[in-house]
Amino acid sequence: MIHEECGVMGAYDFDGKDVAIDLYHGLYTLQHRGQESCGIVTNNYVGLYTVKGKGLVNEVFNKDNLSTLKGKIGVGHVLYGYTGEQSDGVQPIVSRYCKGSMTIALNGTITNYNELRSELEHRGAIFQSASHAEMVMNMVAVARTQTHSAEEALLSVVARLKGAFSIILMSPKKLMAVRDPYGFKPLSMGKRNNTYFFASETAAFDVIRAETLCDVKPGELIKIDDNGVTHFDAAVGKKPAQCIFEFVYFARPDSFIDGKSVYCARIDIGKELYKAAPAEADVVIGVPSSGLHFALGYSYASGIMYADGLVKNSYVGRTFIKGTDELRREAVSIKLNALRGAIEGKDVVLVDDSIVRGTTSANLIKLIKDGGAKKVHMRIASPPFVHSCPYGSDIPDRKHLAAVRMDVEGIRKSIGADSLGYLPIEAFKNVGLGDRFCDACFTGNYPDGFSEKD
Amino acid sequence: MIHEECGVMGAYDFDGKDVAIDLYHGLYTLQHRGQESCGIVTNNYVGLYTVKGKGLVNEVFNKDNLSTLKGKIGVGHVLYGYTGEQSDGVQPIVSRYCKGSMTIALNGTITNYNELRSELEHRGAIFQSASHAEMVMNMVAVARTQTHSAEEALLSVVARLKGAFSIILMSPKKLMAVRDPYGFKPLSMGKRNNTYFFASETAAFDVIRAETLCDVKPGELIKIDDNGVTHFDAAVGKKPAQCIFEFVYFARPDSFIDGKSVYCARIDIGKELYKAAPAEADVVIGVPSSGLHFALGYSYASGIMYADGLVKNSYVGRTFIKGTDELRREAVSIKLNALRGAIEGKDVVLVDDSIVRGTTSANLIKLIKDGGAKKVHMRIASPPFVHSCPYGSDIPDRKHLAAVRMDVEGIRKSIGADSLGYLPIEAFKNVGLGDRFCDACFTGNYPDGFSEKD
Amino acid sequence: MIHEECGVMGAYDFDGKDVAIDLYHGLYTLQHRGQESCGIVTNNYVGLYTVKGKGLVNEVFNKDNLSTLKGKIGVGHVLYGYTGEQSDGVQPIVSRYCKGSMTIALNGTITNYNELRSELEHRGAIFQSASHAEMVMNMVAVARTQTHSAEEALLSVVARLKGAFSIILMSPKKLMAVRDPYGFKPLSMGKRNNTYFFASETAAFDVIRAETLCDVKPGELIKIDDNGVTHFDAAVGKKPAQCIFEFVYFARPDSFIDGKSVYCARIDIGKELYKAAPAEADVVIGVPSSGLHFALGYSYASGIMYADGLVKNSYVGRTFIKGTDELRREAVSIKLNALRGAIEGKDVVLVDDSIVRGTTSANLIKLIKDGGAKKVHMRIASPPFVHSCPYGSDIPDRKHLAAVRMDVEGIRKSIGADSLGYLPIEAFKNVGLGDRFCDACFTGNYPDGFSEKD
Amino acid sequence: MIHEECGVMGAYDFDGKDVAIDLYHGLYTLQHRGQESCGIVTNNYVGLYTVKGKGLVNEVFNKDNLSTLKGKIGVGHVLYGYTGEQSDGVQPIVSRYCKGSMTIALNGTITNYNELRSELEHRGAIFQSASHAEMVMNMVAVARTQTHSAEEALLSVVARLKGAFSIILMSPKKLMAVRDPYGFKPLSMGKRNNTYFFASETAAFDVIRAETLCDVKPGELIKIDDNGVTHFDAAVGKKPAQCIFEFVYFARPDSFIDGKSVYCARIDIGKELYKAAPAEADVVIGVPSSGLHFALGYSYASGIMYADGLVKNSYVGRTFIKGTDELRREAVSIKLNALRGAIEGKDVVLVDDSIVRGTTSANLIKLIKDGGAKKVHMRIASPPFVHSCPYGSDIPDRKHLAAVRMDVEGIRKSIGADSLGYLPIEAFKNVGLGDRFCDACFTGNYPDGFSEKD
Repeated sequence: MIHEECGVMGAYDFDGKDVAIDLYHGLYTLQHRGQESCGIVTNNYVGLYTVKGKGLVNEVFNKDNLSTLKGKIGVGHVLYGYTGEQSDGVQPIVSRYCKGSMTIALNGTITNYNELRSELEHRGAIFQSASHAEMVMNMVAVARTQTHSAEEALLSVVARLKGAFSIILMSPKKLMAVRDPYGFKPLSMGKRNNTYFFASETAAFDVIRAETLCDVKPGELIKIDDNGVTHFDAAVGKKPAQCIFEFVYFARPDSFIDGKSVYCARIDIGKELYKAAPAEADVVIGVPSSGLHFALGYSYASGIMYADGLVKNSYVGRTFIKGTDELRREAVSIKLNALRGAIEGKDVVLVDDSIVRGTTSANLIKLIKDGGAKKVHMRIASPPFVHSCPYGSDIPDRKHLAAVRMDVEGIRKSIGADSLGYLPIEAFKNVGLGDRFCDACFTGNYPDGFSEKD
Repeated sequence: MIHEECGVMGAYDFDGKDVAIDLYHGLYTLQHRGQESCGIVTNNYVGLYTVKGKGLVNEVFNKDNLSTLKGKIGVGHVLYGYTGEQSDGVQPIVSRYCKGSMTIALNGTITNYNELRSELEHRGAIFQSASHAEMVMNMVAVARTQTHSAEEALLSVVARLKGAFSIILMSPKKLMAVRDPYGFKPLSMGKRNNTYFFASETAAFDVIRAETLCDVKPGELIKIDDNGVTHFDAAVGKKPAQCIFEFVYFARPDSFIDGKSVYCARIDIGKELYKAAPAEADVVIGVPSSGLHFALGYSYASGIMYADGLVKNSYVGRTFIKGTDELRREAVSIKLNALRGAIEGKDVVLVDDSIVRGTTSANLIKLIKDGGAKKVHMRIASPPFVHSCPYGSDIPDRKHLAAVRMDVEGIRKSIGADSLGYLPIEAFKNVGLGDRFCDACFTGNYPDGFSEKD
Repeated sequence: MIHEECGVMGAYDFDGKDVAIDLYHGLYTLQHRGQESCGIVTNNYVGLYTVKGKGLVNEVFNKDNLSTLKGKIGVGHVLYGYTGEQSDGVQPIVSRYCKGSMTIALNGTITNYNELRSELEHRGAIFQSASHAEMVMNMVAVARTQTHSAEEALLSVVARLKGAFSIILMSPKKLMAVRDPYGFKPLSMGKRNNTYFFASETAAFDVIRAETLCDVKPGELIKIDDNGVTHFDAAVGKKPAQCIFEFVYFARPDSFIDGKSVYCARIDIGKELYKAAPAEADVVIGVPSSGLHFALGYSYASGIMYADGLVKNSYVGRTFIKGTDELRREAVSIKLNALRGAIEGKDVVLVDDSIVRGTTSANLIKLIKDGGAKKVHMRIASPPFVHSCPYGSDIPDRKHLAAVRMDVEGIRKSIGADSLGYLPIEAFKNVGLGDRFCDACFTGNYPDGFSEKD
Repeated sequence: MIHEECGVMGAYDFDGKDVAIDLYHGLYTLQHRGQESCGIVTNNYVGLYTVKGKGLVNEVFNKDNLSTLKGKIGVGHVLYGYTGEQSDGVQPIVSRYCKGSMTIALNGTITNYNELRSELEHRGAIFQSASHAEMVMNMVAVARTQTHSAEEALLSVVARLKGAFSIILMSPKKLMAVRDPYGFKPLSMGKRNNTYFFASETAAFDVIRAETLCDVKPGELIKIDDNGVTHFDAAVGKKPAQCIFEFVYFARPDSFIDGKSVYCARIDIGKELYKAAPAEADVVIGVPSSGLHFALGYSYASGIMYADGLVKNSYVGRTFIKGTDELRREAVSIKLNALRGAIEGKDVVLVDDSIVRGTTSANLIKLIKDGGAKKVHMRIASPPFVHSCPYGSDIPDRKHLAAVRMDVEGIRKSIGADSLGYLPIEAFKNVGLGDRFCDACFTGNYPDGFSEKD
């Protein structure tokens, strides 16, 4: 499984009411984008109020600390854990600089981070974490010594950043959101009465009864302050290249990206998958939760009965303890048990979003066959995964990727499937996910000319 | 939503290996039966080892404390929280008596508890909790002063117990399981190599790679010790009356009760529900998780497209904090959000397992209509719920039950559905859930002659 | 170091106000008598309210849980950890029996526990812990089936108990305190306005601004209920035999036992110690905290300058981590460092309350010599410790006692002292601690005829 | 009570062994200098290892996290909580800059902090806390872009710092310690075999069996690296002005500052106090713990019997809960109870280190009189406290200081003493604490020309 890094949220209430509870509810909805740590910073002009920590939204926030978060402007963040120095990087990051306070939440990866950081270091900057947000903060502080406003400073910084990023920046009296020129990461704007919101996904607006206004456009900066809402072009002339994997796996099904329902896209992909890789079978089942909607689409297109073939145990937490080696496979069945009643004696189509290393697929197919299935036809709702991602998706070394190490028949054998079919890359276009997307992980076509090392 | 009380598990390894890790994995699988507290007690002849506490299996057990649980015999329990004195009642309960140690895990409710406890008190017994397990323990201790074996004592005690109960009792060298004469609560026996298991549900055997041997029969006591496995009739002559709600709601879909797949039963009930209460609609959706399989059956029978209409947020924990009053409804949508892509502009059949008070249904229908559905046809996979349960299901006072307060049309209006249909009681027979079941909550026919107070 | 087991407290407010905060403050004052666990149970006629747990008063109680402890009657307890099954024994223990609720806190050891428990087991009782309080509770419950009042029942039980015990028992409307016939353990009664208190030590009264009324007499039972305060003779005809070690080590210096100041007794013992074992030296220092007052008395009598020679680090908690073996001795100096400025180049008299194994003394003398002292004359404020205690003091096996294994010269050599002197047993009489005391740990004269096994 | 801010420690092992356990033991010994938070950072050339957090050494460190602290160089810190933004300031602070990593622990206050920070901000620096250590770190990073070595950079920074500071700085391969030109804060160097240590107090060396080598001289920088130990003059020409309050209150009695025993100084001050403010009384007692040694000196000089008049309860933690208003005074007696046996019926000399607001003294005198003392003669082991401290001692606003608001007779009345005497400022010289000390809090003579605002 590959993972997305982080979700961001911002809020500005023109009526002056506290926004913390909205951010808290919104972060719950973005939790799937990062479970390592989370935080909220609010601003009531008198001061900044911060609650952040390791763990889930559920664990970091409580009634007492939420009630300390005063203020009509606020920023929230959920962090997907980077290896290494992640512990220093709990966001939002707050700093003081020559113009007062600055708070940043960032989702993404700055591909020229090392170069920009080195430049800052050589003029005397220090870094207390490896967080790209801290680096951006330093750049803004330097830029601010030569510009007339925070938005000018941020615009000049964004012009120098490469890679994928959605940034929320709160200065003493302003809230700004900016999305990278290619629009790799999603970022939307919502509104409820006189309160405006930014969030990585529109589902966060639903839960706080806000309506989705628009997406922040690739290369756009939106500023909210006492004067109202102002739009700026932070960068222009790039062809949008949104991460296709947001539709395949990262985003919630109830989110809309650039106006397109993620759920509908997945249903449609499932239909395309059947067209491209049909199978004769008694039932089609999905791997929970990410494979379910592809399986449903596959069923719609094929007429093969959709069934629930795997039961997920929602009580298994991060501290799950495995037994002795011979029983280690139990771990899979405690988290996911085969539903014998649905699959026994049947030929099964099993749909998943992707194959990374192949070990998970192998375990699942074994589980389903142990559960009585006669045949398992594996279908994958994306093309073979063969390139690395410099834009923030946590993909293992290429040498570990199944599709790099083997051809399709090799993978089929290694996972124990009776047949194996992938979605062809062209199918994305058929469902409306065409030119505006980055599919470099499947094709190696990096929109910004990034060159993959081998 | 009504809730089942507790799950039990036992293990005996003839090869003498530690059973704690199996019980731990099994309790994970039974977690849905009780989230208040849990515990495991093991026995290695030298001593008893106990780990128990408030909270989920996930929270109570860790690598360190699991490693202290030595022994080839063991008992586990997950407790659904009783109101009141539940805190003293974390099970399994361990005591010492004239013949050494005794450990009990109990699932169920002894309906003549007050009478039996009073009898014990009048001969000088003390009670440190209101747990029915502690009371049974006292009865066994008294009985043991007049009998020649633990099984004889337990048999004589069971003869006096009324109500619903599955009991696992571990004496210094024996493991015993007994199920009440009506078999209200499920209890099965499994085996892996030379290890024997008892568990409330067979799904617990799957995750530890054990096979299901048989159900413990209503009124049967099974003893395991050095001499092997011995069966006794603890009570005879009763007509089995298994809790029908295990099939409707309590049990996991991957469990088998008396050889019948819970999943298949739910699919079949969904089909019957369509026959009895058809609807014209574009999609049929289920309330996660309990309504999903009924919805699937409804779709199979009707040909109406099955869709995923509600997204569950699995990160919302018990400490979730609601906002101000006007936003309190957010709580529903954070836990469960409407999947606009699936329902917008459509006539929707919404399937749930039951209606208790009606407030949850009303909130869901509002959520789905806010999500763009044109019509919502509510379908309930069980008959109206009108009687209380003395056997351990946690049902509110009759006066709070929607179906007691209103007729079907009244309920329909109060929940805001465009139509409302229930499963007729006869339908259970059509799916093979006939005479052997207790359906008193729908019919008031209490198998043991219990008389409901009004 | 030997340790006392437990402290008890009770409160009854005739004005009907909550007593929990007084018990909480009192338990703080009794904390030195037990650090394993603690608890408070209160009674407001409607129900019982319990807060108890492992850890210090500081850790178990907080603002939230204290506020739940409603009621004008209450019982508190601090437990010194028994080895073995102590975890089940957190007191006060609450039970229900034929006459309602019963709550017991007990300090002491019932020497005929095994015999009495076996008797109860043979009539069908079960035991959920090895706590002597639970056993007493069972006896009271049985006795209550044949008596007309709780006090009658308790009196009949006390008549059968052997050993050392101070018991506080709360029945639905009464608070009772009883002290064993020999008065081994201290138990006093205090009063503030219309509130009455019982406590193991009078210092607990000081902190709640109550005055000390009297000691509960050996063999006396005091009952408080709506009718007022009533005294009963629970047992008569025994010669009092209070534990002399309460004066030597267990009790706080600010407590009074039977009207005698513990501080003054220790000063006087220090003077006697000089008379019996004089030394020529430059300074006299005590081992904190228990040796300080003896050292002061020694200084008064000898004219040798009293100094502070050892600094205690009050921040070292129970989780202190030692380093590698060669540095293990650091542990002593982190907890207790030599005050070089006070002892360098000097002949030092070092006064401690007792020598148990001898290892602590050896470490301290090494520490003081490393700190620059020329000579260390060790003086012990009690006689050699050579017998076990069946009454609840936690003394190691006789074979580990220095004074059993060696003569005085042998001990002196093994601890590295330049001279060693003990208090002679007769000296206790000189300071008024004569006939009314149990000194069996020094003499083997057990007041109740207990016979020590070898 | 006024409080010192922070303690620092550093270690460098030429034999390459891990230094974490030594730093941990040392921080225990420095715990009295800061209880808000603490931390250790170690360096094994491969990486830095950090454990830090809020709370006591006892709470922050455990066996697991200590074992992760690999490396032969290390820095430790205990923080006294500043109000305001202290939570971001847990030290040591780690950063990366152009030359790799830098770790700083700082004890003290940079009086020109605002000016220096503003200068940095105007060149684009950001600040994530209000910690002076973070500011110094930024200055070093900037300086390092123009110098050839870390020590050169640090020397150039120190030349610009005003105020009081002891700094430990760890660069990738060096450990440096520097003390401000006036030597306000203590800083010593120790050695055990081939391991060198720096610490705020020499007591930290005792507990790790290291010997005290020397004090770091005011204005001196000491560097340790592969080349050995090198001394630099960071600043010259200043007249030393060590904080006199280290001797009066801050430092442990077992520490030596500039070769002088803190304990002996306190004894001598007590003797001077008697000379300057004699009293006729039966006993002299000290306020634990800081007043005890002055009381002892007073007793030596006067011949009045020294006694222990107040019992400290070491179990009272930070979460202590007070009762209703009328009982609020209990808080004092739970922490500190009068020892009636020592004071009843007596004229008492009560010695404390200082009077700040006067409320504590009033409570104590009330406590002692309630405990039976006839008269209480209060004696203070320092002159009246009338000026603020810019160098890091946490003193309340001048307007709250008793000696600013009242004359001596006024204070005497307000605290309820029968007489009151202070140490005259000249007395410090008599005990050898003369010219080399800063006594600005008593005299207003700020050594660096600081000008107090009123």
